[in-house]
Amino acid sequence: MLRELLPGLREELAPDFVVVNGENAAGGIGITPKEADELLKLGVDAITLGNHTFRHREIWPYLADERRIVRPYNYLPTQPGRGTTIVEAGGTTLGVVNLSGIVHLQAGSPPLVAVDAALREVAHCDQILVDMHAEVTSEKVALGWYLDGKVTAVVGTHTHVPTADFRVLPGGTAYITDVGMTGARGGVIGMKKEQSIAVMRTHMPMRYEPSEVDPWLMGVFVESAGPRKAAAIRQILRSAAAPSA
Amino acid sequence: MLRELLPGLREELAPDFVVVNGENAAGGIGITPKEADELLKLGVDAITLGNHTFRHREIWPYLADERRIVRPYNYLPTQPGRGTTIVEAGGTTLGVVNLSGIVHLQAGSPPLVAVDAALREVAHCDQILVDMHAEVTSEKVALGWYLDGKVTAVVGTHTHVPTADFRVLPGGTAYITDVGMTGARGGVIGMKKEQSIAVMRTHMPMRYEPSEVDPWLMGVFVESAGPRKAAAIRQILRSAAAPSA
Amino acid sequence: MLRELLPGLREELAPDFVVVNGENAAGGIGITPKEADELLKLGVDAITLGNHTFRHREIWPYLADERRIVRPYNYLPTQPGRGTTIVEAGGTTLGVVNLSGIVHLQAGSPPLVAVDAALREVAHCDQILVDMHAEVTSEKVALGWYLDGKVTAVVGTHTHVPTADFRVLPGGTAYITDVGMTGARGGVIGMKKEQSIAVMRTHMPMRYEPSEVDPWLMGVFVESAGPRKAAAIRQILRSAAAPSA
Amino acid sequence: MLRELLPGLREELAPDFVVVNGENAAGGIGITPKEADELLKLGVDAITLGNHTFRHREIWPYLADERRIVRPYNYLPTQPGRGTTIVEAGGTTLGVVNLSGIVHLQAGSPPLVAVDAALREVAHCDQILVDMHAEVTSEKVALGWYLDGKVTAVVGTHTHVPTADFRVLPGGTAYITDVGMTGARGGVIGMKKEQSIAVMRTHMPMRYEPSEVDPWLMGVFVESAGPRKAAAIRQILRSAAAPSA
Ligand SMILES: [Fe+2]
Ligand SMILES: [Fe+2]
Ligand SMILES: [Fe+2]
Ligand SMILES: [Fe+2]
Ligand SMILES: [Fe+2]
Ligand SMILES: [Fe+2]
Ligand SMILES: [Fe+2]
Ligand SMILES: [Fe+2]
Repeated sequence: MLRELLPGLREELAPDFVVVNGENAAGGIGITPKEADELLKLGVDAITLGNHTFRHREIWPYLADERRIVRPYNYLPTQPGRGTTIVEAGGTTLGVVNLSGIVHLQAGSPPLVAVDAALREVAHCDQILVDMHAEVTSEKVALGWYLDGKVTAVVGTHTHVPTADFRVLPGGTAYITDVGMTGARGGVIGMKKEQSIAVMRTHMPMRYEPSEVDPWLMGVFVESAGPRKAAAIRQILRSAAAPSA
Repeated sequence: MLRELLPGLREELAPDFVVVNGENAAGGIGITPKEADELLKLGVDAITLGNHTFRHREIWPYLADERRIVRPYNYLPTQPGRGTTIVEAGGTTLGVVNLSGIVHLQAGSPPLVAVDAALREVAHCDQILVDMHAEVTSEKVALGWYLDGKVTAVVGTHTHVPTADFRVLPGGTAYITDVGMTGARGGVIGMKKEQSIAVMRTHMPMRYEPSEVDPWLMGVFVESAGPRKAAAIRQILRSAAAPSA
Repeated sequence: MLRELLPGLREELAPDFVVVNGENAAGGIGITPKEADELLKLGVDAITLGNHTFRHREIWPYLADERRIVRPYNYLPTQPGRGTTIVEAGGTTLGVVNLSGIVHLQAGSPPLVAVDAALREVAHCDQILVDMHAEVTSEKVALGWYLDGKVTAVVGTHTHVPTADFRVLPGGTAYITDVGMTGARGGVIGMKKEQSIAVMRTHMPMRYEPSEVDPWLMGVFVESAGPRKAAAIRQILRSAAAPSA
Repeated sequence: MLRELLPGLREELAPDFVVVNGENAAGGIGITPKEADELLKLGVDAITLGNHTFRHREIWPYLADERRIVRPYNYLPTQPGRGTTIVEAGGTTLGVVNLSGIVHLQAGSPPLVAVDAALREVAHCDQILVDMHAEVTSEKVALGWYLDGKVTAVVGTHTHVPTADFRVLPGGTAYITDVGMTGARGGVIGMKKEQSIAVMRTHMPMRYEPSEVDPWLMGVFVESAGPRKAAAIRQILRSAAAPSA
C-alpha cells in the first residue's frame, strides 16, 4: 500500500525525509529483510520498530548491518541493532530515535530516563524525530512534554489508531500520541476483525491473519522551523481506495 | 469547564441527549455525589464511569439510587450500581450501556461476551449508546465491529486522548476509539505534567494533582438516522480558553 | 516419570484417588489426547489443567468427550470442556474442581465468585478436591480460607515450585499453595535452564525445550476424615533418580 | 514477633549474620525508620527491601544514610538508597545484594543483567547473600542457576509463602525460591483474611489491615563452606505461639 500511495504523497508534500514504523510489515507482525529492503527501495529514509522487532530471526543480523533501521533505544544494549540513527538528505541531517514504553511492554530501561543518552547521540543533527512505541497514552504524552523544545517531533506508535491530538507544543516540538497504522482500517489493529471478535468472545487461541479490508495510509507531516523545531504538524489519513480523499 | 462550555454547545448542536463519562470528575480520579449532582443539574442525561468508579465510598449508595448514572455492566453483579440505563427526552428513549475492557483492567467478565445481555436490557430503546472504557484499542475496535448495525454508537473512553478514527461504520453504528477527556490538555491524562514526568523519570511515588493548564472539552456529536442507527458522527474538541475555536 | 514413580507411590500410600495436573504434559506446554490417555491408563482418576489448556487443538474435542479431565471452571462456559467432574472408586465419590486465578492470567470470571457454583455441582460428593491454578499466592491462600470447612482439599498449581505451607486448616480443609511439578528440577519451571537464563539476560525470543535434568515427582497425599474433611496432608517430593529418597 | 523469637533462634543456631527482608515491617506495607531501627537494635546485620520500599517518605533519607539497609539494586540509580552493602562480623565479611524481579513488578533494569554489576561491588566478600524479591518463580529459579557457584546463597522473597525447594545447588550456592514471611499465617500475605476474601469476591476497594492470627517467623539458615560457598541450607518455620515447634 505504501508502494501505491507514497509516490503521490511525496509529490504532494515534498518531504525532506520519510520515516516509517515497520514493526508490522511482515504479515502483520514483525519485519524481515525483504520488507525492510522494499521500504528502503521506496525511498524511505529510516525505519523504526517496536515490540515485535525480533519476531523474525532473519532480521537480527540485518539490524546490525543496516544503519537506516532502528529498534527501541531503551532495549538492552546487548540486543541486536541500535536505537538511534542519523540520515542525511540535501545537506540536512535527521536524527531518528526509537523508544519503547515500559508499561505493559518489555523494555530494558524506562524511556524517559534512557532518552537522555539517546538524544546525545543525535544532538548535533539539524532535526530530530522521536518515535515512542507505547501502549499507554500517559507515557507518550509525558515524553512529549519532557522533550518539548528539545526535538523536532515526538510521534507515538503501537496502538494502530490515529489520535486527534497532533499539534506543535509550546516549546516548538511537533507531537501526536499515535500516528495510527498503514494497514486495514476494516480490521482490528490490522488483523481480520472476525478473528479478533472470536478470540475476545471465546478466549480460544487463534492464528491471526492480516485483514485486507479498507486499507489506509496513516501518518503525519511535520514542517520544520529552524534547527530541531517544528513549524507545523499535519495529519495524513489516506484511503488506498480513494487516494485523493 | 463543562459548566462553561456545555450551554454554548447545547445551543449550537441542539442534542437530544448529553452523556458524560464522569470517572475523573472528582479531582482527577473517581466521582462523588457532589460532582454527579452537578453534572445532572447541568442537564446531562446520563453519566458513565470506568475503572475509578468505586474510588470514593460516598458514591456507592448513590449508584444504587440514581438511575441516570451507570458503571461498567461487566463488573460483578454484586457491585453497587447498574451497567445500563434508559433515559427519555422528547418522546425518544436512549439506552446507555457502560462496559469495561478486561485487558490491563479488572472486570468481572469479558466485555464482548457481557454486552449481549446488556443489549437485551435496552433492546427496545430508540437509540443505544455504548461507552467502552478500555485501555487497549483492540478491545474497543473489536467491540465497534461486533456491535456495528446493532446500536447507534460505540464510543471509547479511558485513554484521555481523542482519536481521529470517528466514523459511521458500514452497518450504521457511529464509532470512535476514544473521545478524549474534558480536562487539562496541558497535563498528562489530566494531571500535572511535571508530576507525571517526575514519576516516570524517578520511579518514586507521588500524589498526583489535576493540571489546570489548557482546559478542553472533548467529545463527539452523533446524529441519528432512524432507530439505533447513526447518520453522522462529529468530533467536538473545544478549548475553554477560546470556546469558538 | 509418572509412569516410573506412580506404581511405587501407589503401593506405598494406597490412595483412593490419584489426581494429576496435566497442563504441561505435552513437551512442557499444554496437553494432547496422547498424554491424557497415558495418564488415564496409568490409573490416574482425574486430570486438571490450567492456562495452557487449549494450546493444542487436538485436545479441544477430547475435553468435551472425556469426563475425567477438567479445565478451569471459571473459564467461559463456551470454552470446550468442563470445570468439575465426579469420579468414583470403591464406593466413594470424589468431586474435582479446577479453577484459574484471574491475576496475571486470563479467566472468564473471578475464582472466588465462580467457585460457589462449581461447588454446587459436586456438593453431594464424599470428598471434594479443588485445584487452584494461579500465579499469585494471595488468590490461592484466600481461596483456601474461603473454602476451609467446605471441601476436603485446596491445592494450588502453576508456579512449578512446591511450597512448605501444607497443613490442614482449622475448619478441616487440607491446603497447600503449590504442589510443585512433576518435571525437571534442574530446569526453570521444567524448561532448560540455559534457555531461561538467556531469555532473561538478553530479552531475545527463544523456543523453550523441556529440561531432562534431575526429574522429580511432586505432589501431596491427603487423608480424609469423614465427608469433605481432611485428617492430614503430606508432601510428596520424590526424585526419579532415587525413588526411595 | 522477631523481637520474641530472634533471641532464641540466635542462641540455637549461632549465626554469624542475620539478614531480614523488611519491606512489610510497617503495618504490613513498607518500612519507616522506626521499624528499621528496631530491627537493627535486635542485632539484625542487614535489611533488604522490595516493591514497597518507598511507600513511606520518612525512609527515603534513611536509606541514603544507613548503610545496613538495601533496596533492589536494579531500581534506578537515582532512587534513594543502594542495592548492595557489606557488613562485617568476627572478621568475616558478608556482601548483601537485593534485586527485584521485573515481571509484574516495576524495576529499572532486568535483574539477571543488573546482577553482574551488583556482584562486582561485593566480589571480595567472604560470603555473598542475594535476596531476589520477585513475583514469578521463573525469575527466581533462573537467578539461582545463574549465580550457582558465584555466591553463598540466593533467597527469594515477596510471595509471603515459604517454598519447599531449599537446597544447595550443584555449584555450591544455597537456594530457596521464597523464604516466606514473618507474619500472620492466619491471614492472606499477612493481612486479614476476611478482607482479602471480600475484595476478591466483590472487586470493591478496601483498606487492608495486618492480621494477628497465628504469627510465624519464617526464614532459612545457611551454613557456609569456605568462601562464597554453602555447605547446607535449613528452613526455619517457627510459630510464635509455640516457639519450640
Ligand atoms: Fe507494537
Ligand atoms: Fe503494532
Ligand atoms: Fe479510566
Ligand atoms: Fe480516566
Ligand atoms: Fe500454568
Ligand atoms: Fe505450568
Ligand atoms: Fe513485595
Ligand atoms: Fe511483601
